[in-house]
Amino acid sequence: MSKHAESSVSGRLITVEGIEGVGKSTNLAFVAEELRRAGHEVLVTREPGGTPLGEKIRELLLQPGSEIVPMAELLLMFAARAAHLETVVLPALQSGRWVVCDRFTDASHAYQGGGRGISSATIDMLDKLVTGGLRPDLSLLLDVPLEVSAERQAGRSDRDRFEREASPFFRRVRARYLELARAEPQRIRVIDAARSLSEVQAGIRHALQEVLVR
Amino acid sequence: MSKHAESSVSGRLITVEGIEGVGKSTNLAFVAEELRRAGHEVLVTREPGGTPLGEKIRELLLQPGSEIVPMAELLLMFAARAAHLETVVLPALQSGRWVVCDRFTDASHAYQGGGRGISSATIDMLDKLVTGGLRPDLSLLLDVPLEVSAERQAGRSDRDRFEREASPFFRRVRARYLELARAEPQRIRVIDAARSLSEVQAGIRHALQEVLVR
Repeated sequence: MSKHAESSVSGRLITVEGIEGVGKSTNLAFVAEELRRAGHEVLVTREPGGTPLGEKIRELLLQPGSEIVPMAELLLMFAARAAHLETVVLPALQSGRWVVCDRFTDASHAYQGGGRGISSATIDMLDKLVTGGLRPDLSLLLDVPLEVSAERQAGRSDRDRFEREASPFFRRVRARYLELARAEPQRIRVIDAARSLSEVQAGIRHALQEVLVR
Repeated sequence: MSKHAESSVSGRLITVEGIEGVGKSTNLAFVAEELRRAGHEVLVTREPGGTPLGEKIRELLLQPGSEIVPMAELLLMFAARAAHLETVVLPALQSGRWVVCDRFTDASHAYQGGGRGISSATIDMLDKLVTGGLRPDLSLLLDVPLEVSAERQAGRSDRDRFEREASPFFRRVRARYLELARAEPQRIRVIDAARSLSEVQAGIRHALQEVLVR
């Protein structure tokens, strides 16, 4: 973990990012397993969520049919993040555990920035306020072309408020994710998740090696 | 209303502020009645709340026993405010209605600033982001000594998460409210609400006159 209470921290923060239908759940479990195999204590968590308050905020955010203006959506994400960071993530890192988190600040840039059109300056300001500019040690961006994501989701009737967005929204989200990765290639590793699971996981294992030996 | 889309606005925004047990509900209704009597169309609303999303956020915030770190509390307040302003308050003002709102940004300064210790700079930054620095045309600060507030609330068993705070919290909230009033005496009128209801309402009527003839 960089920039936030660095000196007192011994665990590391690894985030998994990507649009819907990229296989985040399966690969989050794989990341945790790999880290445990390397001898680390691991906490798997998610945003928005990860705390009782955060899970309630998650419900508000994902409920289909909720009308939520973009700025309220962004502030709810950061409210959940403030609680999650202070009561779950930082204590875990400080106790030496490795934290694997399903989405983090990059998702705010991708969804509320790219997707909803809120400026990077506004998101950076909230990021600084809430996380102190905390960056994960490694972020795995699971990336698939939009058609693959759509195909993997087709036929699901239980889609949440975000999953019901039309494809131009996801095109902007994906494009912003890829921009973030180009801006921070050392931290954000793009994993081509359209390949077979074993190839995807070989890619993830490779990216994890660098953090494990660091 | 000042500073926010001013040119397109014909209604006015009047807020009622104060700690618990000062008689806000009764006096909100009185304010609305006075304005209607003067021939205005009036919308009575509240924060946090006033929209379906805002009311759900209100539930999260008021539920006794919820653990909410101060920064999350502040961001939830502003998330509710963003929704309320964009979808309820500004449209009402733009259509010429007068809006009477139970608490607004001053409450964030009093409760999350004075009460929880978040800096004024942080609250001002969020205020600018969410409201563009919007200030009500008139804010009525119903003020009573802490002992009166405590006495009026004694015996109530349905107290919410804020109402369960101990008196040092309310002492800080009240002190910050009074500081805000000293800094903006033209906008924020302190009404001594420890007096009889008819005296309180005479004070309110007097303060309203200036906005009504403006």
